[in-house]
Amino acid sequence: MSSSLDSHTSQTWGGRFSEATDAFVQEFTASYSFDHILAHYDIQGSRAHADMLAASGILSSDDLKDIHRGLDQVLTEIDAGEFHWQVALEDVHMNIEARLTEIIGDAGKRLHTGRSRNDQVATDIRLYLRAAINSIQGQLRRLRAGLIDQAETYADTVMPGFTHLQVAQPVTFGHHLLAWNEMLARDDGRLTDCAERMNQCPLGAAALAGTSYPINRQMTAEALGFTAPTENSLDSVSDRDFAIEFTAAAAITMMHLSRMAEEMIIWTSAQFAFVDLPDRFCTGSSIMPQKKNPDVPELIRGKAGRVQGHLVALITLMKGQPLAYNKDNQEDKEPLFDAVKTLHDSLLAFADLVPAMKAKPDSMRRAASLGHPTATDLADYLVRKGVAFRDAHEIVGTAVGMAETQGKDVGELSLEELQSLSGLIESDVFEVLTLEGSVAARDHIGGTAPRQVRAAAERARAKLSAV
Amino acid sequence: MSSSLDSHTSQTWGGRFSEATDAFVQEFTASYSFDHILAHYDIQGSRAHADMLAASGILSSDDLKDIHRGLDQVLTEIDAGEFHWQVALEDVHMNIEARLTEIIGDAGKRLHTGRSRNDQVATDIRLYLRAAINSIQGQLRRLRAGLIDQAETYADTVMPGFTHLQVAQPVTFGHHLLAWNEMLARDDGRLTDCAERMNQCPLGAAALAGTSYPINRQMTAEALGFTAPTENSLDSVSDRDFAIEFTAAAAITMMHLSRMAEEMIIWTSAQFAFVDLPDRFCTGSSIMPQKKNPDVPELIRGKAGRVQGHLVALITLMKGQPLAYNKDNQEDKEPLFDAVKTLHDSLLAFADLVPAMKAKPDSMRRAASLGHPTATDLADYLVRKGVAFRDAHEIVGTAVGMAETQGKDVGELSLEELQSLSGLIESDVFEVLTLEGSVAARDHIGGTAPRQVRAAAERARAKLSAV
Amino acid sequence: MSSSLDSHTSQTWGGRFSEATDAFVQEFTASYSFDHILAHYDIQGSRAHADMLAASGILSSDDLKDIHRGLDQVLTEIDAGEFHWQVALEDVHMNIEARLTEIIGDAGKRLHTGRSRNDQVATDIRLYLRAAINSIQGQLRRLRAGLIDQAETYADTVMPGFTHLQVAQPVTFGHHLLAWNEMLARDDGRLTDCAERMNQCPLGAAALAGTSYPINRQMTAEALGFTAPTENSLDSVSDRDFAIEFTAAAAITMMHLSRMAEEMIIWTSAQFAFVDLPDRFCTGSSIMPQKKNPDVPELIRGKAGRVQGHLVALITLMKGQPLAYNKDNQEDKEPLFDAVKTLHDSLLAFADLVPAMKAKPDSMRRAASLGHPTATDLADYLVRKGVAFRDAHEIVGTAVGMAETQGKDVGELSLEELQSLSGLIESDVFEVLTLEGSVAARDHIGGTAPRQVRAAAERARAKLSAV
Amino acid sequence: MSSSLDSHTSQTWGGRFSEATDAFVQEFTASYSFDHILAHYDIQGSRAHADMLAASGILSSDDLKDIHRGLDQVLTEIDAGEFHWQVALEDVHMNIEARLTEIIGDAGKRLHTGRSRNDQVATDIRLYLRAAINSIQGQLRRLRAGLIDQAETYADTVMPGFTHLQVAQPVTFGHHLLAWNEMLARDDGRLTDCAERMNQCPLGAAALAGTSYPINRQMTAEALGFTAPTENSLDSVSDRDFAIEFTAAAAITMMHLSRMAEEMIIWTSAQFAFVDLPDRFCTGSSIMPQKKNPDVPELIRGKAGRVQGHLVALITLMKGQPLAYNKDNQEDKEPLFDAVKTLHDSLLAFADLVPAMKAKPDSMRRAASLGHPTATDLADYLVRKGVAFRDAHEIVGTAVGMAETQGKDVGELSLEELQSLSGLIESDVFEVLTLEGSVAARDHIGGTAPRQVRAAAERARAKLSAV
Repeated sequence: MSSSLDSHTSQTWGGRFSEATDAFVQEFTASYSFDHILAHYDIQGSRAHADMLAASGILSSDDLKDIHRGLDQVLTEIDAGEFHWQVALEDVHMNIEARLTEIIGDAGKRLHTGRSRNDQVATDIRLYLRAAINSIQGQLRRLRAGLIDQAETYADTVMPGFTHLQVAQPVTFGHHLLAWNEMLARDDGRLTDCAERMNQCPLGAAALAGTSYPINRQMTAEALGFTAPTENSLDSVSDRDFAIEFTAAAAITMMHLSRMAEEMIIWTSAQFAFVDLPDRFCTGSSIMPQKKNPDVPELIRGKAGRVQGHLVALITLMKGQPLAYNKDNQEDKEPLFDAVKTLHDSLLAFADLVPAMKAKPDSMRRAASLGHPTATDLADYLVRKGVAFRDAHEIVGTAVGMAETQGKDVGELSLEELQSLSGLIESDVFEVLTLEGSVAARDHIGGTAPRQVRAAAERARAKLSAV
Repeated sequence: MSSSLDSHTSQTWGGRFSEATDAFVQEFTASYSFDHILAHYDIQGSRAHADMLAASGILSSDDLKDIHRGLDQVLTEIDAGEFHWQVALEDVHMNIEARLTEIIGDAGKRLHTGRSRNDQVATDIRLYLRAAINSIQGQLRRLRAGLIDQAETYADTVMPGFTHLQVAQPVTFGHHLLAWNEMLARDDGRLTDCAERMNQCPLGAAALAGTSYPINRQMTAEALGFTAPTENSLDSVSDRDFAIEFTAAAAITMMHLSRMAEEMIIWTSAQFAFVDLPDRFCTGSSIMPQKKNPDVPELIRGKAGRVQGHLVALITLMKGQPLAYNKDNQEDKEPLFDAVKTLHDSLLAFADLVPAMKAKPDSMRRAASLGHPTATDLADYLVRKGVAFRDAHEIVGTAVGMAETQGKDVGELSLEELQSLSGLIESDVFEVLTLEGSVAARDHIGGTAPRQVRAAAERARAKLSAV
Repeated sequence: MSSSLDSHTSQTWGGRFSEATDAFVQEFTASYSFDHILAHYDIQGSRAHADMLAASGILSSDDLKDIHRGLDQVLTEIDAGEFHWQVALEDVHMNIEARLTEIIGDAGKRLHTGRSRNDQVATDIRLYLRAAINSIQGQLRRLRAGLIDQAETYADTVMPGFTHLQVAQPVTFGHHLLAWNEMLARDDGRLTDCAERMNQCPLGAAALAGTSYPINRQMTAEALGFTAPTENSLDSVSDRDFAIEFTAAAAITMMHLSRMAEEMIIWTSAQFAFVDLPDRFCTGSSIMPQKKNPDVPELIRGKAGRVQGHLVALITLMKGQPLAYNKDNQEDKEPLFDAVKTLHDSLLAFADLVPAMKAKPDSMRRAASLGHPTATDLADYLVRKGVAFRDAHEIVGTAVGMAETQGKDVGELSLEELQSLSGLIESDVFEVLTLEGSVAARDHIGGTAPRQVRAAAERARAKLSAV
Repeated sequence: MSSSLDSHTSQTWGGRFSEATDAFVQEFTASYSFDHILAHYDIQGSRAHADMLAASGILSSDDLKDIHRGLDQVLTEIDAGEFHWQVALEDVHMNIEARLTEIIGDAGKRLHTGRSRNDQVATDIRLYLRAAINSIQGQLRRLRAGLIDQAETYADTVMPGFTHLQVAQPVTFGHHLLAWNEMLARDDGRLTDCAERMNQCPLGAAALAGTSYPINRQMTAEALGFTAPTENSLDSVSDRDFAIEFTAAAAITMMHLSRMAEEMIIWTSAQFAFVDLPDRFCTGSSIMPQKKNPDVPELIRGKAGRVQGHLVALITLMKGQPLAYNKDNQEDKEPLFDAVKTLHDSLLAFADLVPAMKAKPDSMRRAASLGHPTATDLADYLVRKGVAFRDAHEIVGTAVGMAETQGKDVGELSLEELQSLSGLIESDVFEVLTLEGSVAARDHIGGTAPRQVRAAAERARAKLSAV
């Protein structure tokens, strides 16, 4: 159980020492244990701020040199795991500043001129999230590339298309995989929009109202790769939209991954047996030696709830908060960090898994033959011959019944049998009643015909290259 | 209590007639009671589909004429409230098609050629949502315009800026109102992104795999104002991203409105008394004659939870669903429709209220004087005179203590008293110690200085005109 | 689109008449359109309050008689659909009181003595929810009874037990159905706890502080079937725990129904084909004549998200609200009412469906034979003969491989083949390698052995009778 | 950024080594990094299981002795921080079992007889949660005790009662604090219900179907302090209701704490100034020396969203899962563990803070005098003198107007002035128009009269002692 739970339950029933209380409150309100992952970005922001202060004549060039030197050392210590984080210094910002001042003396104290922790953390977290989105999009695009490749591989492979998990019409496996790609392409777009919208620099907002020093906000914004400084100081320190918008995009992406996962799980069941997943994405059972469980898809399906939970946490966090900064906002970090990690790792796992997934075309084909999947094609055939849709529907209904009494699929009826239902049926009907005929007939943009799937894969690859 | 609750609790304990059950299931699974609001869009989509079928030679020009005539009449009946909705016909699509066929005969049956309810509803709901977003942005921009106007009116009005709901530094009321505008400007952008991303036409995806008719998907897409047809038929009928992305944007906007509401509620308390809301946005009490309650802001604060709930409902709905269409998806409509209405009406209410809100500058000013709000300015003054920040901080701490023992604000100390703390203090200190001096000093982009607020309002207005 | 959206978007861009605004605000803040379903409970509460006022000497007996007479008439008008609801009267309480006063004159005005709308609505909604829980438990118990009956019917029917949707070990279908009953039994308990906890009467809390009239709170509490009056007036008018606790219990129950639904959907797929659902719970397709879709389970799976959304709406609603009553609280009703209806109707649907669900024992049996489901039993057999578990596991692994090369199940190997792997294997091994042997061996409380299933069904029925 | 993010982004764009992938998947699917906090409970469960196996003749007494000795050593190593956790061993169970077998040899392998990780983890987590609830209730009751004490201290202290954050009627501060206690008393009850409902032992369910060994489930259940064994093996390994029910109760409790926090934050604002919080629960500002921010209440208000997020994560996790165990379920732990810690620590913080909170009776009194808080009392007075309520309301309205033109409160009008409005007013009116008169008049159970507050505090203390 957690340390605070451990250390405060047994002995605290009686009187408690005020010092113990203070130590608890200090730990309860400190953030260094999770915001230390912002350290790189905090230092990056401090360098830009110091450069600007010097360029604006607020800081001497000697101080500036010392600050860069000191920050170099701090960064080295952190990367080497030798930095001594102190709970008494509350957060990543104060820990770094205190150490800096230890190293370089008074110049360290002058770094904080014209800024406050409120605009500092707002800047850090945007730098962090911008980099995180970049990494995430890397994995996302790797997954998309894998899907497009697989779609071409399986452009002709017929499988049952389902609605209501009931066999509906034949489709190709390549077409199905491109449907997944479409979902992910929208996700990619949402991440890009989010990254662009948040790419404004809050540095200079100071505590809430701006600062009385002659700062140059354009300069820091530019140095840190932001499009522009933010427009309003109060908004700058109280805004957490970017965290929510990102987590919403992440939750939608995870929902998509959960749908892909659900299908993989169903497809690997003995009853479906549509695909094989490589062993390294599965686990066995300690007591059932025959088991091979699709652990990675299952886990990712489960993680969809996790990110959705973080989204709820973040919106609820901000609900009803008056301006400007409130301590509540410290609670934005853990959900955001975990959403980033969960999304990234889930995409990484699927980007590895998808190219390694193997279809079982025979199983798919057998399943596609169940349940008269080309019945719709027969109706369409009749309509093209001039039969009104409702009449065609009725004729096909009779044909289905006839086939079922013989234990056949409707596509296996003889020409004579079919002609007994309608004189308009000719031998060309079998082209549309085969699985291949059925899929080939859906030959328009977005349709499942193999040549459409190949064209769609090419367009998808072009779009992916262009992002 | 709801009708099904009423009609099924008392008498259903014993045996139930199978017919009664059937009636319940029919009502339970039907959607016309809420999806009828899609009627206009359903008819719009049918017209475009029929035009395309005729242009592609699938439908005769006589049939086409009949279909338009019939749809004219259906529309008239619906608008006049004379359309007879039937639960047995399940949904808006079948109700309209059945009535159409009653009016024009067999041609009505031919309208459904090459489409299915799956792509039909996907099209309808996108048309609906596109129009809804347009209306919502109308109200949103009206609200933004009102905020910008008010910001100019109050560009010089000093109020306390808060962090942690404790007086921090003086700001201007205009600056505060522009912070609200910044939130809403991001919301506007999110809605635009959402509208663009979803603006692709699913018509032609048919049930799930496309259709074997020689349809022209570009033509319908264009006719309905879509950018392009969707890329994949399976994705087209199973995708509900647009509903989720919209509701996420709506939930964030409502969260912003809840923050504005919280501030209005606090500001209208007798203890703050910063603003007056017009009577028509407030209510009294039936038993306490002296009450004037800020009902509209309170209700909107409450409604933030409502839209957040819809967001959760929609993401959860889609979690783990295999492709393509499942009946679960019918559950997308009520949350979406209610999110649209709630957001629209809340924006409308605030767009009316904000221009009518009156500041009480005297109260604001009095509050801004509490708690040494210019203490930071004194520290900044000393730093500019060459004092190291930590020393400046200590001197100001002493000054605060001195002022408190005299029951004064630090800005009310005499020059002699201040000089007893630091010889560097001169008479120009009082410029920075006044509320006006403090706000005027924050004179950079994003700062609270009145001239910055005026410039920011101008930029905000220009951006609003450019959307 | 919604009426307010309709009536305010097109014409409201230019100037708006203040009256139009007022009408909008009136509609925006009014609640009668949904809280009218509390009418019965409002009248019930008013009768009890009036009786108490009279018994306490605050109301004359003539007034009391008039009030009961007037309320009789109001109730009659409401039940007959002849009551004229007015938006100007805001809510159900004022609408009824106004009509009452029209009918009986001044005595109607005296009914409100010693109460306010704040304690009145708190009382109404508890009365409503108590009745709703009662109805819901009725359906829930009907469903449980149906499950227990079916479990006995299928106590011997062998099916594959799954983990990770992979065949694990054979179980009986009756055992599986009793697992569902266990979930629902916990749900039942949660609803009972919720109903008990909320069963305290807030009447007398008045606006927030209590009343200066000599009221008798025990008397009204008793008359309305509450356990006791609430303990604190401020809490009484601001508490909405009961709505949240109920909706949490409802969301968990709906989650259980979604799990049952998922299984039914998988089981009715052509690939599994474990059960048949009656036609009346399914629908066909307008374009695919062969389809039979499990609509009711799909819809219920989807509705799980809906109730979860309401839960989020309600907790978020209350977050950070200061005491006592705020207008936000008006937003508690729609989510609660819809959660009640959704849960009730979903349970009703499954209570009808479950007894009508038919198993397909042959399909189940065939599926149970796939994938060496009794491999664990062979390992257990060896352990019982003295082999260490890890060695047994290895031997079975070899047996599985041997069987697979022959295209057999491990249970189909000959005694000789098995003995070649371990000399300890004797002919009694086949008892444990059959599906029947495997299930029969799990013969302890909670195990899947048919005699345990029958005993469990009996205990379940006894518990159900005892609630 | 997280390690997996670090180690997989830069170098993984090109080809990746299959080993690197495997290492990632291993880490991705392993749970020891968080489930190690179950170690104590895992060992406790293993001891009980081993005792039962021995008593049932499945395990020799020598093996049993070895197992206890080995587990003693494992526990010692874990407590001393010397246990070597291995990712390759996946989870807490396998890590402990592997180490046990290292220490005691083959007997360690025999411990797993008749159980699986599925029932093992289900048992561990219930043992954990039962202990956690116990700790949480300890802090909760300490907080309740503090509130009751403070309520007695301030039983006579008059403050404004608010509705809509507008002054409504005077109440006592003690009454307000007891409202908080009522919320927490319901929370306490929910936790107790949850702990009772889950207190059944899943051991013996094995992988999903039970086991073929002659185990004694009653014996293990009893040994571990459970009420009984669970009723159904499939349900036992797939049920996570307890985690959801607990987190729902936790989210409601956190919502209550957020309401208390909101009030404390408003009360400590300079504008209200109703209470003082001890310094150790507040922090200052690095740039504004005058600030004292109520950090602890703000942080707890923020944490309400966090626990709500966990609730959503957990319900979503379970939505639509088929029976029995799926890997998704591994995702139940982190949200649950964090909900436990957050709730516990938040209660601990408030249990320390509440007794240290100091009221400022003068400020409260001054605020209570604003806005004619006793206007309702005047109306009640007139009704008691025989005036009809509506007339009384009108007279008071006039009195309020008269007072306002003189800049007075209605309670400050002279007897002559009041009598000019109604001849029924006599000098006894001033008793009801004072703040003390007003609160004293609400003298019934649940009312704010000081003597009722004292009685309520006594009842509250008695209930607390009785839990």
